[in-house]
Amino acid sequence: MSATAGQIIKCKAAVAWEAGKPLKIEEIEVAPPQAGEVRLKILFTSLCHSDVYFWEAKGQTPLFPRILGHEAAGIVESIGEGVTHLKPGDHALPVFTGECGECAHCKSVESNMCDLLRVNTDRGVMIGDGKSRFSKNGQPIFHFLGTSTFSEYTVVHAGCVAKIDPAAPLDKVCVLSCGVCTGFGATVNVAKPKPGSSVAVFGLGAVGLAAAEGARISGASRIIGVDLVSSRFELAKKFGVNEFVNPKDHDKPVQEVIAELTNGGVDRAVECSGSIQAIISAFECVHDGWGVAVLVGVPNKDDAFKTHPMNFLTERTLKGTFYGNYKPLSDLPSMVDKYMKGELEVDKFITHSVPFSEINKAFDLMLKGESIRCLIRMQD
Amino acid sequence: MSATAGQIIKCKAAVAWEAGKPLKIEEIEVAPPQAGEVRLKILFTSLCHSDVYFWEAKGQTPLFPRILGHEAAGIVESIGEGVTHLKPGDHALPVFTGECGECAHCKSVESNMCDLLRVNTDRGVMIGDGKSRFSKNGQPIFHFLGTSTFSEYTVVHAGCVAKIDPAAPLDKVCVLSCGVCTGFGATVNVAKPKPGSSVAVFGLGAVGLAAAEGARISGASRIIGVDLVSSRFELAKKFGVNEFVNPKDHDKPVQEVIAELTNGGVDRAVECSGSIQAIISAFECVHDGWGVAVLVGVPNKDDAFKTHPMNFLTERTLKGTFYGNYKPLSDLPSMVDKYMKGELEVDKFITHSVPFSEINKAFDLMLKGESIRCLIRMQD
Repeated sequence: MSATAGQIIKCKAAVAWEAGKPLKIEEIEVAPPQAGEVRLKILFTSLCHSDVYFWEAKGQTPLFPRILGHEAAGIVESIGEGVTHLKPGDHALPVFTGECGECAHCKSVESNMCDLLRVNTDRGVMIGDGKSRFSKNGQPIFHFLGTSTFSEYTVVHAGCVAKIDPAAPLDKVCVLSCGVCTGFGATVNVAKPKPGSSVAVFGLGAVGLAAAEGARISGASRIIGVDLVSSRFELAKKFGVNEFVNPKDHDKPVQEVIAELTNGGVDRAVECSGSIQAIISAFECVHDGWGVAVLVGVPNKDDAFKTHPMNFLTERTLKGTFYGNYKPLSDLPSMVDKYMKGELEVDKFITHSVPFSEINKAFDLMLKGESIRCLIRMQD
Repeated sequence: MSATAGQIIKCKAAVAWEAGKPLKIEEIEVAPPQAGEVRLKILFTSLCHSDVYFWEAKGQTPLFPRILGHEAAGIVESIGEGVTHLKPGDHALPVFTGECGECAHCKSVESNMCDLLRVNTDRGVMIGDGKSRFSKNGQPIFHFLGTSTFSEYTVVHAGCVAKIDPAAPLDKVCVLSCGVCTGFGATVNVAKPKPGSSVAVFGLGAVGLAAAEGARISGASRIIGVDLVSSRFELAKKFGVNEFVNPKDHDKPVQEVIAELTNGGVDRAVECSGSIQAIISAFECVHDGWGVAVLVGVPNKDDAFKTHPMNFLTERTLKGTFYGNYKPLSDLPSMVDKYMKGELEVDKFITHSVPFSEINKAFDLMLKGESIRCLIRMQD
């Protein structure tokens, strides 16, 4: 039992007070975990596009002040009543989605979309009592994705905290708690390309590069990157991408360009940009008879997917995935193990690193498109 | 070698001279099979909706005079040069699609959409020389779907003729050459419902009933029939359908009705009507996390499939199938064997039977919605 168990902890957190304004490092108070909750000491966090998206708050209901952050690694400080799979001192990854173990989704081998702990971007409080565990001078500060990892300490539902091998370097495996698993799992768990096959990856951000890495590890021989920014091809080569198509370079739709390159279409496509044009192109660029397109990128809420139904009837498949179809508690420990055994490369995703005090630099790097993942060192 | 091998055969055929006008039984001439072709004596044929659709010729390029028919069983009369898997006297099923054995689709375990012999509704001649094998007084008569089984003799590409067990009753297994395999395979080969699961079947014609039969044999516990004609429910019970929804009986979209009935959606849906509204509903009525919708029914060429991409991202799958994903030459013999072993019921699909001279009655029965399959006895 740690000395702070059951006590309010005062610590530093990067608070987003307003949409689009630099985060401010504040001393805040973090309440103890309630029943079914865990308080984590965050050692490393990294910035994901979703943090930036909800910080900009364009098109969503703004919820401020809020502590963002959801890709992280840390150590359990204390646990609430009824938590059995974790104890103080355990190394752990908090995840933006969870596994209650009780619902139809958790009981299904096919789904990871837990009814209770499924991602909820609008909620800014704990599920248990509808309250925040963060405050500053008595003013509550909202949570984000149930994780709020831009804080030295955070409180997370125990169903969203995966216990991992204590030997794993937390400054590396932290990226498994969102982007890398999302893209990698979309390919290896859902698209499942065969050795020697062709795979198109739309959108070469961290998630798309992880999808390409999944194709590379699966033995795909042609991995075609599709992005509006041609300079991304060079970096993408490290993740197995060996051909590149920029839709801007062609007069015809990119699905036709890809069909011509591949004698009728690719075997698999993984869409990681969220652009509705890319979603339609990713589906229509797969080969008839056996092609499978997998959607990962989240489109705008008013977008409509539209295609001729004959594109399905000629034996194409379209499916979506969420967090690479991984169940956070069940599957993350083995992903960490894969990293430890050298079967999964994550270091190359981490292109930058800043101390916590310079967290706003991580936002700048992402907005400029310079970083894949920028690590934020909470203790520096 | 039959006495007629290499000779022109004079025989009776039901010729469609004009769109929508009764077929006329004529004496025609059937040329011998050329290289890679087979001449079949048709003993039994049955009427499928596609025959009626192309006979009505609404919205397609009309092609007349034509000999329709594509669901049949017969005996090989003679073979052309190079045909090795069949010999005169073999019992066989002609199929509207084929298996060349050489193309990427035939070599793929996932596809049955042979590049060479894939269904082509516009072609009215043989692939080999672009000519018809049928004529009357020197006037060529067009083929239909490469099969033209409304004739006592027909010429078919050998890649579209499956050799079957000679002990199988041809007046029963003839229905396997189109509708029954199309629906049954959509369920057992593509949707693959698990024992105890729920399946919605849209459109309770022969194909939909075969899809329901596939669900019943797979052990699905809830099989929900969806059709605009409520009287079809009674008959559908024989094929495992145990719940019924008529979209006309509800103010809300049928996908919402089904979601309410099933605590969030069915595990699988199979769409056999071809209505674009049904196609969209079939996709949107499957459960998030694991639901799979399979499209079988062919929509109008101007229809667009439209849905919110989030319906995919919440882990739903949509895929199409063609002829139940069966490869005609490779898979039909074992389907016939399943029938012979009692593992597959086909008799119940055959609700009516007429002699060849009364073939137009079969059209009347189908247009009135009274028959599932009407057998046409070529020798009576």
